[in-house]
Amino acid sequence: MGVEVLDTELTEQRLNQLTQALGSGMFVHVRNMLHDMAPSDVALILESSPPRSRQVLWQLIDQEQAGEILEELGEDLKDALISNMTPERLAQATAGMDTDDLAYILRSLPDTVYHQVLQSMTSQDRHRVEQALSYPDDTAGSLMNTDTVTLRPDVNIDVVLRYLRQRGHLPDATDMLYVVDRRDQVLGGVRLSDLLTCNPSMSVRDVMDIELESIPVDMPANEVAQLFERHDWMSAPIVDSDAKLLGRITIDDVVDVIRENAEHDMMGMAGMDDAEDTFGPVVKSTFKRSLWLTINLFAALLAASVSNMFENTLEQFATIAILMTIVPSMGGVAGNQTLALVIRGIALGHIGQSNSRWLIGKELAIGCLNGVMWAVLVFAAVWLWKGEIALAGLIGGAMLINMTVAGLAGAGIPLILKKFNIDPALAGGMVLTTVTDVIGLFAFLGLATAFLM
Amino acid sequence: MGVEVLDTELTEQRLNQLTQALGSGMFVHVRNMLHDMAPSDVALILESSPPRSRQVLWQLIDQEQAGEILEELGEDLKDALISNMTPERLAQATAGMDTDDLAYILRSLPDTVYHQVLQSMTSQDRHRVEQALSYPDDTAGSLMNTDTVTLRPDVNIDVVLRYLRQRGHLPDATDMLYVVDRRDQVLGGVRLSDLLTCNPSMSVRDVMDIELESIPVDMPANEVAQLFERHDWMSAPIVDSDAKLLGRITIDDVVDVIRENAEHDMMGMAGMDDAEDTFGPVVKSTFKRSLWLTINLFAALLAASVSNMFENTLEQFATIAILMTIVPSMGGVAGNQTLALVIRGIALGHIGQSNSRWLIGKELAIGCLNGVMWAVLVFAAVWLWKGEIALAGLIGGAMLINMTVAGLAGAGIPLILKKFNIDPALAGGMVLTTVTDVIGLFAFLGLATAFLM
Repeated sequence: MGVEVLDTELTEQRLNQLTQALGSGMFVHVRNMLHDMAPSDVALILESSPPRSRQVLWQLIDQEQAGEILEELGEDLKDALISNMTPERLAQATAGMDTDDLAYILRSLPDTVYHQVLQSMTSQDRHRVEQALSYPDDTAGSLMNTDTVTLRPDVNIDVVLRYLRQRGHLPDATDMLYVVDRRDQVLGGVRLSDLLTCNPSMSVRDVMDIELESIPVDMPANEVAQLFERHDWMSAPIVDSDAKLLGRITIDDVVDVIRENAEHDMMGMAGMDDAEDTFGPVVKSTFKRSLWLTINLFAALLAASVSNMFENTLEQFATIAILMTIVPSMGGVAGNQTLALVIRGIALGHIGQSNSRWLIGKELAIGCLNGVMWAVLVFAAVWLWKGEIALAGLIGGAMLINMTVAGLAGAGIPLILKKFNIDPALAGGMVLTTVTDVIGLFAFLGLATAFLM
Repeated sequence: MGVEVLDTELTEQRLNQLTQALGSGMFVHVRNMLHDMAPSDVALILESSPPRSRQVLWQLIDQEQAGEILEELGEDLKDALISNMTPERLAQATAGMDTDDLAYILRSLPDTVYHQVLQSMTSQDRHRVEQALSYPDDTAGSLMNTDTVTLRPDVNIDVVLRYLRQRGHLPDATDMLYVVDRRDQVLGGVRLSDLLTCNPSMSVRDVMDIELESIPVDMPANEVAQLFERHDWMSAPIVDSDAKLLGRITIDDVVDVIRENAEHDMMGMAGMDDAEDTFGPVVKSTFKRSLWLTINLFAALLAASVSNMFENTLEQFATIAILMTIVPSMGGVAGNQTLALVIRGIALGHIGQSNSRWLIGKELAIGCLNGVMWAVLVFAAVWLWKGEIALAGLIGGAMLINMTVAGLAGAGIPLILKKFNIDPALAGGMVLTTVTDVIGLFAFLGLATAFLM
C-alpha cells in the first residue's frame, strides 16, 4: 500500500458530493468532509461555490483551520469573509499565520478591529507583524518571512549538525541556512543538501556558497519574481540598505506574485479588476466593472462624433455607412496584438531604453506590411461585393493608413504609459482602440468625402 | 564584505554597455562580459536584443554555456538558434542538460539532425532521453526529471546520513528523498530538513511523511501546476499507473508552466501566439499574426452585411449610421470582461459542471443590470446630443438587448468551447465580438427600421 495517487477528477467529484450534501441539508456530513480536507482544498471549494453555499460552508469549517484557509483565498473573497468575522475569531484564526499573510489581513481591517486583533497577540508576534506592516505592499519586504536560521562562518559542520538536532525543527520551505558576520551582513549560504553530503569536519566557510545574491528589502515584488524565475531559486535572503539580513522570501510566495501579475495583465487588458471573485455578488461586480464601460461610452461617443463630422457624406452614400466599421475593427485587432506583445515584454523585463526604439520600428514595419496586405484584400472583397472600384480603392487606402497607425500605437502607447508610470495593461487597450477607431473612421470617411463628394 | 546585493537597474545597465560595446566593434570586450555572466542573464540579454545583435552575441558566447542558455530562452528564439547549429555543436551544447529540456530540443529537430545528436550521446543519457521523449508534451512526464534519490523504510537515519556523505552530492532542487518498497511503489518522503533535525537512531519509517501525494505521469501539465500552487510544494513524486516511482517534478519547472499558461491566455485573447519572440523578424511575425486578422476580416464583413440588410434605413437617416457603432462597442467590452473572468476561472480550476450553470446565471444577471444602466445613460446622452427622444429610446432599447446578450455570451461561449475541447482563450474573443457586433447592429438597425420607417 503506497501513498495516495492524485486523481485529476478528484476535486470535481468532491465538489459535486459537497454540493449534493449541502442541498439535502446533511450539514454534519459536510462538516466531516471538510474536516478531512487540506486547507488548500477547502479554499478551492470555497472559491468555486456560489455565495449562499459559501456562507454555509464557512460556518461549518473547523475554527482551527480558518486561518490557513484564509491564506489561500483570492483577495475579494478573503476581504468579504474577514469583514464578517468578530475580532475574537479573527485573532484566533490568525494565530499561526505566516507574517506576510497576517500583515495582508491586518492591512485590510478597519482601525478598531485592527487594534483588537493586535492586542490579542503575544508581544513577540505583535512585534513581528508591526515590522512586516512597515514595508510597503508589493515590495520584497511584504513577501518576506523573518524565520531565518543563521550560521557563523567559523563554526564546524558537525557543530551545526548538533545544533540543528537540538533545535529539532526548521521553518517551512527552508532549503538554505544563511551565513552572517557579527554585524548580520550576509556572507553566503549553506544548502541543506550540502550539510548532508559534506565532510562534517569542514567549516561553514568551506562549504558555503558565496555566489549567493541578496535582494534589497525595497525591490518591487515583480522584479523579485523575475529574479526567482530567471535563476530557479527556491529562496533568497532579504537585506536592508546596510546589507544586513532581515529575512527570506520563498518560492511559494513568489509563485503567487507571478500568478497575480499574470492575472492582472490578462484581466486588466479586458477592463477587469484582478481581485474580482468569479462567484461574487451581482451588484458589486456590476459596479466594479462600470468604470471601464463608462470610459468606453465616452470613446464610442468620440468615434460617433467623428462620423458626425461626415454627416453629409453618410446621407448621400449608405454604402459608406455599411462599410465604415471594417477599417476600425481590423486596426483594433492588429493594434491589440502588438499591445499584448509589448505588455508581455515589459512583464518579463525584456524591454528597456536600449531596445524600445527598435521595437517601435519593428512594429511600425509590421503595421505597414499588414496595411499593404489587408488593403489589397479588402479592396478585392469590396470590389467583388459592391462592384465599385472607387469605393474599394478608398477603403483600401483607409486600411493602409489605419493598420500602420495600429502598429505604431500598439507599441508606442504602452511604452509611453509606462514612462508616466501608468499601468499599460490597464489603460493601454482603451487608449489604443480609441485611437484605431477614430483614425480608422476619419481615414475612411475623410477619403470618401474628399473623392466622392 | 558580504555577498552581492542585487541592484534593480543592473540588467538595464549591462544591456546598455553591451549594446555600446557591440556597436563600436569591441568584440573581445563583449566576449569577456558574456563570460562573466550567469547563463540566465545571457539568455535575458539575447531575448532583449534585436536580431542582428543577437547573431553576433550568439557567436561570442562560451560554447560550454550554450546549453544552459538555450534552456532559458523562449520557444521562438530557441527554435531559431537551434536551426542554425551544426549537429556537433548541438550535441556538445546539450551534453549536461536536464532530461526535460533536452527532450524539448530533440522534439524540435529535423529527423536527420535528431539522430546525429542522439548518436553522439552516452548510452545512459540516450536511454534517459528516449524515455523522456515517450511522454507526450504538456503532461507531467514531459516535466519530469529522473534523478531521484530513494530510500528503503527499514533503514536507520544514521545509515542514510552515512550513505549521503558517501554519495557526496544531491541532484539540484532536492528537498525530499522518496521512500519506496521493493516494487518501487512510493510509501512516503523524508524531507532534508527532517534528516538534519531528527534523532539519527530513528528509522526512515518513523520520520517519513506518509501524507505525501503522488502525481500520475499522464496528468496534464496545467493540473500539475495547479496542485503545486495550491499545496505550496517544492517537488512531487511522479508515478506510473502501478504507483511505481518514475521521477520527480520540481517547482522551477512548474513556475515555467504557470508563466507559459498565463502568457498563453493573455496573448491568446489578443490573437497572438504565446511563442512569438518580441524582437523577432518582421515578415515572420506578420504572417504569424495574419490568421487572426483573416478571421476578423470575415467577422467585420459579416457585421457589414448586417448593416447592408438595412440599407434603406441608413439611406434615409444618416444619424442612425453615426450612432450605430456605439451599441456593438459597449457589448464587446462588457462581453470581454465576462470572458476574461471565465477564462481565469477555468485556468484556476474553479469552474466545473456543478457551478457553471450558476455562473452563467450570474453573468446574465450582470448583463441585464448593465443593460438597464447603460440603456438609461446612452438614452440621456443621445437625447441631449441629437434632441430626438424616439432615436434615444431606440438606441437605449438596443443597448438593453446587446448588454444582456453580452453577459450570456461572455460566460456561455468559453464554457461551450471548453466542452468541445477548443481553447477558449484562443477562440473565445473572436466568437464573442462577432456575436456582440452582429446582435448590436441587428438590434439597433432593426428597431430603427421597425419604428422609424
